[in-house]
Amino acid sequence: KLREQMQNGLLAPGFDETSCLSRYQASAYRKPSSHEPSSYLISKLRRYEEVHKRCGPNTKFYNETLEQLKSGHSGSPTECKYIVWISFSGLGNRILTIASAFLYALLTNRVLLVDPGNDMADLFCEAFPETSWFLPLDFPIKDQFKDFNQKSTECYGNMLKSNLLNTSTESIPAYLYLHLVHDYDDQDKLFFCDQDQSLLKKVPWLMMKTDNYFVPSLFLIPSFEQELSKLFPEKGTVFHHLGRYLMHPSNHVWGLIMRYYQAYLAKADERIGIQIRTFESGTGPFKHVMDQILACTAKEKLLPEVDMRGSYITPSRTPKLKTVLITSLSSGYFEIVRNLYWQHPTVTGDLIGVYQPSHEKHQQTGKQLHNRKAWAEMYLLSLSDVLVTSAWSTFGYVAQGLGGLKPWILYKPDNQTVPDPPCRRVMSMEPCFHAPPFYDCKAKTGIDTGKLVPHVRHCEDISWGLKLVDGICRKRAREGKLRE
Amino acid sequence: KLREQMQNGLLAPGFDETSCLSRYQASAYRKPSSHEPSSYLISKLRRYEEVHKRCGPNTKFYNETLEQLKSGHSGSPTECKYIVWISFSGLGNRILTIASAFLYALLTNRVLLVDPGNDMADLFCEAFPETSWFLPLDFPIKDQFKDFNQKSTECYGNMLKSNLLNTSTESIPAYLYLHLVHDYDDQDKLFFCDQDQSLLKKVPWLMMKTDNYFVPSLFLIPSFEQELSKLFPEKGTVFHHLGRYLMHPSNHVWGLIMRYYQAYLAKADERIGIQIRTFESGTGPFKHVMDQILACTAKEKLLPEVDMRGSYITPSRTPKLKTVLITSLSSGYFEIVRNLYWQHPTVTGDLIGVYQPSHEKHQQTGKQLHNRKAWAEMYLLSLSDVLVTSAWSTFGYVAQGLGGLKPWILYKPDNQTVPDPPCRRVMSMEPCFHAPPFYDCKAKTGIDTGKLVPHVRHCEDISWGLKLVDGICRKRAREGKLRE
Ligand SMILES: Nc1nc2c(ncn2[C@@H]2O[C@H](COP(=O)(O)OP(=O)(O)O)[C@@H](O)[C@H]2O)c(=O)[nH]1
Ligand SMILES: Nc1nc2c(ncn2[C@@H]2O[C@H](COP(=O)(O)OP(=O)(O)O)[C@@H](O)[C@H]2O)c(=O)[nH]1
Repeated sequence: KLREQMQNGLLAPGFDETSCLSRYQASAYRKPSSHEPSSYLISKLRRYEEVHKRCGPNTKFYNETLEQLKSGHSGSPTECKYIVWISFSGLGNRILTIASAFLYALLTNRVLLVDPGNDMADLFCEAFPETSWFLPLDFPIKDQFKDFNQKSTECYGNMLKSNLLNTSTESIPAYLYLHLVHDYDDQDKLFFCDQDQSLLKKVPWLMMKTDNYFVPSLFLIPSFEQELSKLFPEKGTVFHHLGRYLMHPSNHVWGLIMRYYQAYLAKADERIGIQIRTFESGTGPFKHVMDQILACTAKEKLLPEVDMRGSYITPSRTPKLKTVLITSLSSGYFEIVRNLYWQHPTVTGDLIGVYQPSHEKHQQTGKQLHNRKAWAEMYLLSLSDVLVTSAWSTFGYVAQGLGGLKPWILYKPDNQTVPDPPCRRVMSMEPCFHAPPFYDCKAKTGIDTGKLVPHVRHCEDISWGLKLVDGICRKRAREGKLRE
Repeated sequence: KLREQMQNGLLAPGFDETSCLSRYQASAYRKPSSHEPSSYLISKLRRYEEVHKRCGPNTKFYNETLEQLKSGHSGSPTECKYIVWISFSGLGNRILTIASAFLYALLTNRVLLVDPGNDMADLFCEAFPETSWFLPLDFPIKDQFKDFNQKSTECYGNMLKSNLLNTSTESIPAYLYLHLVHDYDDQDKLFFCDQDQSLLKKVPWLMMKTDNYFVPSLFLIPSFEQELSKLFPEKGTVFHHLGRYLMHPSNHVWGLIMRYYQAYLAKADERIGIQIRTFESGTGPFKHVMDQILACTAKEKLLPEVDMRGSYITPSRTPKLKTVLITSLSSGYFEIVRNLYWQHPTVTGDLIGVYQPSHEKHQQTGKQLHNRKAWAEMYLLSLSDVLVTSAWSTFGYVAQGLGGLKPWILYKPDNQTVPDPPCRRVMSMEPCFHAPPFYDCKAKTGIDTGKLVPHVRHCEDISWGLKLVDGICRKRAREGKLRE
């Protein structure tokens, strides 16, 4: 029970329970993970927590390292080094990039500090005991965060271009800005090369802005390889474990999650989550998207079919109650599915309740309640038994990873037509890295990074994306590749 | 069990169960009525069923009586006499007027035939065994039904005006049209006088168009008095019993009701129905209406209050799950109430699920699915444990009567302001007769018909309306009168 509550040792003891109810209560609502974290990962996390406590905001070491930042250049090597995650992009993206930055911190012995941005502290609990992971509000160069871009003088790629850095340079800067946003260029991408990592190693402060789950490419950096395989013997569980370890909904968000779950979903025999995200112009509903979803749930037998002619079927056995949780910016899909199962009996006699917590019409980055709802909905989706997600969407990746679920993913429609097949089961529950580098650091040529090792493959939903998969999925992966 | 299924003998045996599942399955979803029908009512119904079988469509007697209609004047007294209910007005109104016409048929030994209109046969089962209550499609003057009005030559009130009828007349017409629509005039209203009833008695075919539950005024006709008090020793149960006896949802509608109930409402510990009907221009939501509803549910402790500042309350006892079923043409009230209980914890820790089956935006008389939904929603409301209804609305009256519920009724707002108090508990579950006559048939003067007998009072929601109440409610009735 307690072991379950602590998620097989993944979670650290030593937190004040009331300050973050979700950390302890979550285990009562989730099926326990069928993927054990490795004991190596667990001890690495415990050691990280020690380091974070020693190096965290307002500690002696922190203040010392901050002096270097203020002075503008690094002096003698510091006890603590930092990676500062800059709040950027949609909430799903942010959750994935925090996990990516954290893994990078684990691999490089850095301390992760999270720029609270507008709402991070409103949405998430502290991740590490007896310290804070939030960057202090008085952090010196905080105001520059939003202006950091490819062209900033402190940008690593830009510095390489201007030849301001080389591996032999004596004067290491006190901080560098790492631009890992989808529009990054070839120089920025050198971040994923071992040579560059050995230079970056010396910089006390790294500031990172990214909207991508870049973990798969970390697995292609030779110097990280051994450590990663000890941390994650099951490769397809990186975000699953790190997400559950790091991302605990704040009490506000936990209230949204629990009240919704208990009032609407708890009593069901089966919970089906359908995450609908379109990248068409306008919010929809679009007919081809609705058709695609229904084609997928019918083909994969995720939802029972209805008898369009029948009026009322007296079920022969006790009917099962299934809930469908739909998340979407539009309420149109929900209305159609709900009415379908209201107006017609299912052929199995099973009962289908259809739910949608919110329909926000459009993405509203930065509004507090809006993002609380978005986080609550990702989490609620993760409590499903069966999950259907939309291509290209980090919102769905978060749900699948936290839930430990391999969803059926809806292919992205072209030309407003229903793809055939409409969806497929994913190879692993890992998120897709949408904008990976295709570069062979040694040979200094382009290369298909999705074909180097068996556990880094192209994604189901984005043919040029990369994702981690487990060995056992190789056969499935090959099948998936037919579509790439 | 069987007795329960037959609603204490109210329902006749001898039906094909599959043709009307609701008749037999309803008892599994409703609490049994706490009001026993009188044995006198039950035997009266059994005798009526015999008569209806003997006189129903396409029987020998029916054909004979039809001959008189075709010939244009009545001949020798016929074995069977009829009251034809003409399909008219909204669905709630229609359900109430069928019950009214049926009671009138019981009192005057007539056979009730129901004009199927556009959708009556789609919405309701047959009411009487081994026969039909629907007027045959080839009924001669069917095409004239929609043109019948106060000025029709066959209109009773109009004939009186033109002196074409008097009690001593020898040539009784084969049919008369009774105009009991809310706009009826003083002559039409003479229907409620004994003298007129003794003339009407002789007419083989009465065609009735009404949008009012005129039962309360039948209780003021001296010649009906004795029979009515035998039929209904509990006066406040007339529509409750007759509605449950007559109005069985068709299998289509039963499917809507059952699927909704089982998927969304069945597992709750308590069900609260809120019927929202506004008579403002536009569909709303209107702020003053929302405020009024919340003021009512708070004041009367029908719903728990929320803690606007709290984020999540770990309940001290097992929380109760309560569902709120909202019916309204607009979805706005639903969204507000649902979000209120999603975004804030209740002070009791109880869980509140909020539901609305449809939001049709505006009344669409005659559309099949639209009226199926309306009927399903009235019925679903009737399955509530606690009911809140809107003033002036027959939709709510039907729900309360079928459910055997005394709702809290929301006063009709004036000038877009919240009335104070916002609502009150009704005196009885009877519908209100919105447009009763105020006439003393003997003295031939105006009179307040709400003050003649203790069991016919003015309504809670319409000061000039009349409704039946039980003796035991006299004190409450007096309290209610303070607002009249
Ligand atoms: N509440 C809610 N918000 C959504 C939904 N889909 C998109 N959004 C909003 O749009 C943003 C999308 O950005 P992100 O989470 O990064 O997901 P992505 O764009 O699908 O990869 C979310 O953070 C929400 O603010 C949804 O289904 N529910
Ligand atoms: N489905 C649905 N229809 C409604 C609702 N309120 C009103 N309507 C429609 O409007 C009509 C109102 O007429 P009626 O039933 O006679 O009720 P009244 O006008 O409130 O007395 C209904 O029959 C429905 O067609 C509602 O809450 N749900």
